[in-house]
Amino acid sequence: MKTMGLADLSLVSPRRFPDLEASAMASGADDILGSAQVCSLDEALEGVSLIFGTSARLRSMSWPQLDPPACIARIRESAGRSAILFGQERAGLTNDQLARCNFLVHVPTVEAYRSLNLAATVQILCYEWRMAEVGKGQEQPLPQREPLAQSQELEHLYGHLEQTLIDIDFLDPNNPRLLMRRFRRLFSRIQPTRNEIHILRGVLSAVDAITRSKSERDERP
Amino acid sequence: MKTMGLADLSLVSPRRFPDLEASAMASGADDILGSAQVCSLDEALEGVSLIFGTSARLRSMSWPQLDPPACIARIRESAGRSAILFGQERAGLTNDQLARCNFLVHVPTVEAYRSLNLAATVQILCYEWRMAEVGKGQEQPLPQREPLAQSQELEHLYGHLEQTLIDIDFLDPNNPRLLMRRFRRLFSRIQPTRNEIHILRGVLSAVDAITRSKSERDERP
Repeated sequence: MKTMGLADLSLVSPRRFPDLEASAMASGADDILGSAQVCSLDEALEGVSLIFGTSARLRSMSWPQLDPPACIARIRESAGRSAILFGQERAGLTNDQLARCNFLVHVPTVEAYRSLNLAATVQILCYEWRMAEVGKGQEQPLPQREPLAQSQELEHLYGHLEQTLIDIDFLDPNNPRLLMRRFRRLFSRIQPTRNEIHILRGVLSAVDAITRSKSERDERP
Repeated sequence: MKTMGLADLSLVSPRRFPDLEASAMASGADDILGSAQVCSLDEALEGVSLIFGTSARLRSMSWPQLDPPACIARIRESAGRSAILFGQERAGLTNDQLARCNFLVHVPTVEAYRSLNLAATVQILCYEWRMAEVGKGQEQPLPQREPLAQSQELEHLYGHLEQTLIDIDFLDPNNPRLLMRRFRRLFSRIQPTRNEIHILRGVLSAVDAITRSKSERDERP
């Protein structure tokens, strides 16, 4: 909960609370346990207008069932307060508790093995909340400490690379295009930084130096 | 892993393996542990062309970093085999291990509390895999055991309701529209089943019977 920015926890009839083992495992998140409300389900749902019940299995009762992203989307659309109910590790929510819910939430496990832990279910729902907060499915490049290479620097690299590859007899100078296009594709995918371009051109210059000294040697009588 | 349909687990230098406690906790998923490969990182990555490393914190190294859905999307686009590396609970992946990765994957925890458990991170990535398999963000109504009410049955309900509400002096018969529109809005949101319509009309009929017997009594001299 705390890693995902949630804090409002109510515990209905906990077997043991406070509990030393739980507090020890909470390492750094024991403030969430400390401020948890121990209460009845009615008290927990006071002021709540939208209630979701997590449910591992299909019920005989027909009940609208959402996946976690759809559940979170409903919560975010709702003007009032919302609650997600989680049942006991083994038994889940009772039918009476489920009947209090507007919707069931179901994490779509595979048919063959449905037993998702309570902690895992809580984590997934908190995670979906957080992802809705930050916006999901995006590639988040690290804050770029090094500036990316500009197009012209890349062009200089390609020009340098082409000349060096011709000098070392790797490229056919009459038809260098095909291979150079492949290098262009590769580097545009990499999106090199300015520093990386410098490093690469340093390598090319080192190769150039060897090529030059070799050709000077070859020219000697 | 097993709840999400994944099975291919490699363990690099596990502290204890096999381990009685781990097997006991796996309850029903011990086949995954039983078929896990204990090997070096090189062996684990044999035949893998796309490698992701989970990383809790921003690194000083600039490295392309994805969120879990973006990571899974890349895996699914890739023609070859992919691997996700998870580090130790406390230390995470080493810099050498991270340098083997094409991308870092980061679960976007809140700044204030970033310590996501290893198990939680694994669960979230497996969950995102599964959600990509089944298609996410959808409302998945339970297989409807009862047929939904047809439009005409709803119209009959509205007609019946309107008459009953007039009979019990709840509706102004000269201007019943406004309130009836609210009832329509309510029931269209509910999407009642045919059976539910029958039940509601049964209630209305019971009210009608009382109204009739009362008015007959009133008419008696």
